[in-house]
Amino acid sequence: MNELTIEKLEETIDKKNINELRNIFNEYNSVDLADIVSSLDIKKTVFIFKTVPSNLTAEVFSYLNSEYREKLIGFLTSKDIKNVIEELYTDDIVDFIEEMPSNIVKKVLKVIDKDLRGEINQLLSYKENSAGSIMTTEYVELKENDKCKTALNKIRRDGKGAETIAYCYIVDNKRTLKGYISLKDILFSEENVKIKDIMEKDLVSVMVDDDKENVANIFKKYDLSSIAVTNSEMKMLGIITVDDIIDVIEEEATEDIEKMANMTPLEDDYFEVSAFEMFKKRIVWLTILLFASILSTFILSKAESTISTIAILTVFMPMITATAGNAGSQTTALLIRGLSLGTIKTKDFFKALRKELTVGILIGGCLAIICYLFLWFEKSVGIIEVEYNANYIFVAVALSLMCVVIVSKAIATSLPILAKVCKLDPAVMAGPLVTTLADALAILIYFSIAKEFLIPLFS
Amino acid sequence: MNELTIEKLEETIDKKNINELRNIFNEYNSVDLADIVSSLDIKKTVFIFKTVPSNLTAEVFSYLNSEYREKLIGFLTSKDIKNVIEELYTDDIVDFIEEMPSNIVKKVLKVIDKDLRGEINQLLSYKENSAGSIMTTEYVELKENDKCKTALNKIRRDGKGAETIAYCYIVDNKRTLKGYISLKDILFSEENVKIKDIMEKDLVSVMVDDDKENVANIFKKYDLSSIAVTNSEMKMLGIITVDDIIDVIEEEATEDIEKMANMTPLEDDYFEVSAFEMFKKRIVWLTILLFASILSTFILSKAESTISTIAILTVFMPMITATAGNAGSQTTALLIRGLSLGTIKTKDFFKALRKELTVGILIGGCLAIICYLFLWFEKSVGIIEVEYNANYIFVAVALSLMCVVIVSKAIATSLPILAKVCKLDPAVMAGPLVTTLADALAILIYFSIAKEFLIPLFS
Repeated sequence: MNELTIEKLEETIDKKNINELRNIFNEYNSVDLADIVSSLDIKKTVFIFKTVPSNLTAEVFSYLNSEYREKLIGFLTSKDIKNVIEELYTDDIVDFIEEMPSNIVKKVLKVIDKDLRGEINQLLSYKENSAGSIMTTEYVELKENDKCKTALNKIRRDGKGAETIAYCYIVDNKRTLKGYISLKDILFSEENVKIKDIMEKDLVSVMVDDDKENVANIFKKYDLSSIAVTNSEMKMLGIITVDDIIDVIEEEATEDIEKMANMTPLEDDYFEVSAFEMFKKRIVWLTILLFASILSTFILSKAESTISTIAILTVFMPMITATAGNAGSQTTALLIRGLSLGTIKTKDFFKALRKELTVGILIGGCLAIICYLFLWFEKSVGIIEVEYNANYIFVAVALSLMCVVIVSKAIATSLPILAKVCKLDPAVMAGPLVTTLADALAILIYFSIAKEFLIPLFS
Repeated sequence: MNELTIEKLEETIDKKNINELRNIFNEYNSVDLADIVSSLDIKKTVFIFKTVPSNLTAEVFSYLNSEYREKLIGFLTSKDIKNVIEELYTDDIVDFIEEMPSNIVKKVLKVIDKDLRGEINQLLSYKENSAGSIMTTEYVELKENDKCKTALNKIRRDGKGAETIAYCYIVDNKRTLKGYISLKDILFSEENVKIKDIMEKDLVSVMVDDDKENVANIFKKYDLSSIAVTNSEMKMLGIITVDDIIDVIEEEATEDIEKMANMTPLEDDYFEVSAFEMFKKRIVWLTILLFASILSTFILSKAESTISTIAILTVFMPMITATAGNAGSQTTALLIRGLSLGTIKTKDFFKALRKELTVGILIGGCLAIICYLFLWFEKSVGIIEVEYNANYIFVAVALSLMCVVIVSKAIATSLPILAKVCKLDPAVMAGPLVTTLADALAILIYFSIAKEFLIPLFS
């Protein structure tokens, strides 16, 4: 099969070769088709959606970007829209509707079938980030007393529009969830075996109000490909499939990264967020951290007499604060990620602290030696000029570096776990604050050591 | 169904109630069972593996942690080991073997069936992080000329041990991949329809040497649940399933986070890495960054005359360098994540730079005003003592802050994209360096502004 090019597609449309066009939409993958279609002149795309059957175009539609989709909807008649929308899975319709402006939403909801509209409205009413917001209502339901043969017939009857048939869900007459079964188990059992005898009863299901991140954690823990969603009375409402969970996992990681980097998470891809929106997401934390740096200013202003006695001390300050920040952010990043993946728990605090202190002593000692040698090298090549007794100053700097690393690691371990204990988000609370606190403490430690050991020697 | 507790399980073992034990392993989920089993005394677990049929215990075995598995293998006879291992999927056997010390590996490889051993050895030979390293050889193969009825019979015959039957793969007599088909399409077609008429021919497949991160990207792009793995001649070798891809996606995000936080990524969970291993992963970048901070030392030592004229300048330095670092890391985090998810491409450099400069000017302006007011506040409550004409100094600090933010944003945009263009990993190269460079440039900008505007006024 040759690769499809935009030129070939345009040519087919220009020639109005509808059969060929149908073949193309039948043969090529919807994701690739959507890539090409979204570069087409909108009139050509309208021609496609009017001539190719909607069962072939609906999936392509679901992969177009929202801007292009909005434009396309504007050009389609109510009947065309109805045909495409009704071919989509309910969760994709909800995603689509949530991105559209209200006039388009009205246009779409007006044309679709009443029952479907009810379902969509119900799905739209679930809280953002809840299990309900990513679930679909298209799955296969079976009864406990169905025999495998009946079950297979039901799957053949109801499964066509289902998002997955790999797992079917068993409910009673009140639609209470009783269990689930894989199609594999049905296929590998005798025709007369009853579903209730082979179904899985250890109900791995989630509640419709559960946070979608928790749902993702359950998927990961149990290696699921779909999961049942119920209300608080265990009534079956829908299912969530793994493809939507992959998006959740990725969003979650992106959010953690953004929070650790002193930002309120963006709600969209980089280029889809306006500069002013970006500004708002960033200015809050930068302002908070600016105020937090009052600590450093304050500590430094108290050290003025030490600085004026040994002016050269200032020169090494950025080296010390930078190392404190770098050492601290290593630890916070590991702790925040571990807490979010569940590999570190709050009860592990002392275990983690002991580990980080051990690592801190190793790193601190090692950096102190490197730093001491490095300073002598800098002096000998003339990068820094130390007029007083250099050796004492270098020892004080190296010693400070070591203490600073150990203290930073300790704060960087404590803050994320403390945040978690206080039910705050470790990425938000600890990520940004660790560097600022480490900075202030580094300055305090550095000038305290200098005051204790150097001032008596130099004054 | 009641929740299973460790006490109940221990009691059943102590009573040697084998029927009840079998029921428990039949009814409860393997993941939950593994959680409980791994807290059991090893002798009790050995009893389980000797009395409960291996088709019920094998999956539990695959969810035990590697330490516990190693201990358990030591207590089991060759026959017990053979029974459990041969029930596992090949990719799980490979994962297990890769974690075991060589004496255990030998013990295991010796007992298993020759054909399986050949397959495992082949799988073990694939490069780490390649598609081959995460694939399984258990899937269902069909022929183009099979009718749906034959196909269903083949699935019933071969599918029992397959990791998924939701998709089957079609090969010719030379085992060249021809296409794939979903079980759904087979079930919904007439018995006599030939597979080749309904199979998907747009071959979304990967090569055995492809990096597993690329495989994950293909899964995400095409919303797959499994994918075919072939050699360079399109001969079918195995499949990769979505549960393993979820692990890859998560590892990838964790690695990016660790690299951005100045570390070489860990190969294991936090508590499974020794303190010395941690030290090695962290010391390298800390040393490099210590050397990089020579730039700040150098710039500061050149500013000594400015500092000695207006000593108070030093007090505001940490505030300026911290803000530079914070503003820079916001931008790098977004750029690195965008480049890694593909939402930002290297050709978008100027678009991204324009955006970041706009945001930088907004943030810089805003912070400058806040900072100016803040300094007056600090002065009025007596936190800092400015003896000279405070207004001029505060204007210089605010102005520096604004310039520093804009410059940091520009570097933080350029470094990740530059790294990508040079085929280096943006997270490794840009993450750690941005803060250090931003520090040095912040000091340069601050003291240059001070020298230009303040020195003439104060000397």
